[in-house]
Amino acid sequence: MVANSKKGSNRDLAKALAGMADQVIASANKGRTPSMDIPVRSLANVSFNEKKRYIEMGSAKQQREFFNVNMAKKFMQTMLVAAACRQLEDEGKTTSIRDLFYMIKHRIDGSSENTVDEQTESDAVIEDLEVTAQFIREELNLFAENKGALAGEITLVDSGDTIDARAVGSGGWAIPSIVEDHVIKFKKCTAKFVLLVEKAAVWHRLNQDKYWKKHKCIVLHGGGQPPRGVRRLCWRFVNELKLPLYVYVDNDPWGYYIYSVVKQGSINLAFESQRMAVPSARFIGLSSFDPGTYGLDQKATAIGLDESDIRRAKEILAYPWFQSKAWQKEIHNMLANGVKYELEALTNKSISFVTEEYLPKKIKDKDWLD
Amino acid sequence: MVANSKKGSNRDLAKALAGMADQVIASANKGRTPSMDIPVRSLANVSFNEKKRYIEMGSAKQQREFFNVNMAKKFMQTMLVAAACRQLEDEGKTTSIRDLFYMIKHRIDGSSENTVDEQTESDAVIEDLEVTAQFIREELNLFAENKGALAGEITLVDSGDTIDARAVGSGGWAIPSIVEDHVIKFKKCTAKFVLLVEKAAVWHRLNQDKYWKKHKCIVLHGGGQPPRGVRRLCWRFVNELKLPLYVYVDNDPWGYYIYSVVKQGSINLAFESQRMAVPSARFIGLSSFDPGTYGLDQKATAIGLDESDIRRAKEILAYPWFQSKAWQKEIHNMLANGVKYELEALTNKSISFVTEEYLPKKIKDKDWLD
Repeated sequence: MVANSKKGSNRDLAKALAGMADQVIASANKGRTPSMDIPVRSLANVSFNEKKRYIEMGSAKQQREFFNVNMAKKFMQTMLVAAACRQLEDEGKTTSIRDLFYMIKHRIDGSSENTVDEQTESDAVIEDLEVTAQFIREELNLFAENKGALAGEITLVDSGDTIDARAVGSGGWAIPSIVEDHVIKFKKCTAKFVLLVEKAAVWHRLNQDKYWKKHKCIVLHGGGQPPRGVRRLCWRFVNELKLPLYVYVDNDPWGYYIYSVVKQGSINLAFESQRMAVPSARFIGLSSFDPGTYGLDQKATAIGLDESDIRRAKEILAYPWFQSKAWQKEIHNMLANGVKYELEALTNKSISFVTEEYLPKKIKDKDWLD
Repeated sequence: MVANSKKGSNRDLAKALAGMADQVIASANKGRTPSMDIPVRSLANVSFNEKKRYIEMGSAKQQREFFNVNMAKKFMQTMLVAAACRQLEDEGKTTSIRDLFYMIKHRIDGSSENTVDEQTESDAVIEDLEVTAQFIREELNLFAENKGALAGEITLVDSGDTIDARAVGSGGWAIPSIVEDHVIKFKKCTAKFVLLVEKAAVWHRLNQDKYWKKHKCIVLHGGGQPPRGVRRLCWRFVNELKLPLYVYVDNDPWGYYIYSVVKQGSINLAFESQRMAVPSARFIGLSSFDPGTYGLDQKATAIGLDESDIRRAKEILAYPWFQSKAWQKEIHNMLANGVKYELEALTNKSISFVTEEYLPKKIKDKDWLD
């Protein structure tokens, strides 16, 4: 896995992009139509790999040709995006996908057409380039919006600055979108596990109670569905530091789904699974059995499932990666009870119930789902 | 202003909340109906103070009585919220407003009623308590969702941890929701000004280029409309460290509005203006005149105003605090051109145009609006 990450690191990006351009030039010199083979990113080319335990992309490809009225514009856009990424690499800079859109947006000489009109066009080309050049967008020096924060038993070097995550205050270290090893390096790690929390508010409780200090771990959140930077960072903790990862989410179908994206990847971003999915991730809660086990006041804290919850739960029940007995039991129990619970529901017991009782007992009892 | 901030600091919170409870007990002992005077939070009780240059709340109050069928529940909720805030204060903890909702949510003995059913109920009571007890919610130990990050020429102490904002890496220091001086203390500040940027992506460019180092400043963003923590932190920079504040937003009516909330406060949160509004804040851009001044490729970067933009721009034109000649000219120019510009449009010139040319020239030429 680490070798895989090296292969995709920024070391070869300039070369890989130049290689793409060289192919086009070579075709032109031979009098052939310049073309590229681009892997197909549709649902038909995505499947769940039972052995690797993540969602991956198949091998189907489609050709993009320059001398084809339907493809010429997209071909040009692909070249523009590749050239912009090469420029970023050469200048040692990173930028947002919105910025990239503006970087390549120009009026085409002698026409009333722009190279791109909407960001959706450049975004699609970025995804093409990711799968074609085999670099995830963070390696192409492009960042998405970042969310999430981290505190705990690790020292990191972020762009040359040493960050001791044991002393990052109440705010924590803001997790950047790009966490590749040329940006973020791991130094002294004294953590025994990583806890990924769905919600910022719960992370604050854990940080304020210094849960990570008492239990020797790293605690991070992704502000809901974790963004790519947070997922990629978790991947690196698991694969490079060999730490187990626990995921702590609301007890509702959306919480289950957040866990499943961390674990198996997503259909939309199947290409990235090999660098983002963490098949060993464990679901530590909230389980639909927790309110009973932990004596929660269910009348005060349960929220009725609505129609969209029920529909989503049934969809999740059918996913190949939720077919274990334990998971079927977990989801069926939620549906049978007809209620869901938020992480904050534990506050009804006491302010620090989550750090003082719930999480310690969960981990001690190994009361999680794989 | 600083004295004001001290008055509202957490030092007296326990006493203030106990005082509220004592009044209720005293009334009961005298055989009177327990009641509270709560300032009115409606639009009718809000106005723009021309002298102070911010939106403030008037002095109208309404009585909340315990022995009144329409008020009894809200009275009880107010007491519950006050008691929970007192508990947080006693335990030295802070929590989210969602958590607070769960803290006080219980089935009322011998009934089928809950103390609160929806978070909107406890949120409204929190606002009542803020205006009645004269503590903003951050002082009541309650946080909202946090957004935003900071880097630059200052050392802070956050909950006992020293944060040198000159070495916070690519992610930056995540700005917490509660930045009161018992949580965040200012240490060595070598900044000459503060630059608040609307968008995270632009902040990243400034941080990556170490704009703050070259130009001796603090650069922070609030992820769109800045959350309370970011506004309060700016307030403290301006009032305690005497730094000028520049606001850098998209050139559209929403950007103008973000600036105006930072400067004058908002109608919804008029009570908080005295601790959040920064009447000296300067609008540094994007101005509707900038694309011309800076030779932007307007064909490639302008975005047409849509109907909601035009409607909003006209509303803003009519606000009392946008009546200066310069502001009228600024907004009329946008409307006349019929286009808006995003901050990222500057990338069309070059990746680092914003840090190397635009901002340095703007500040050198004092080309801002008050």
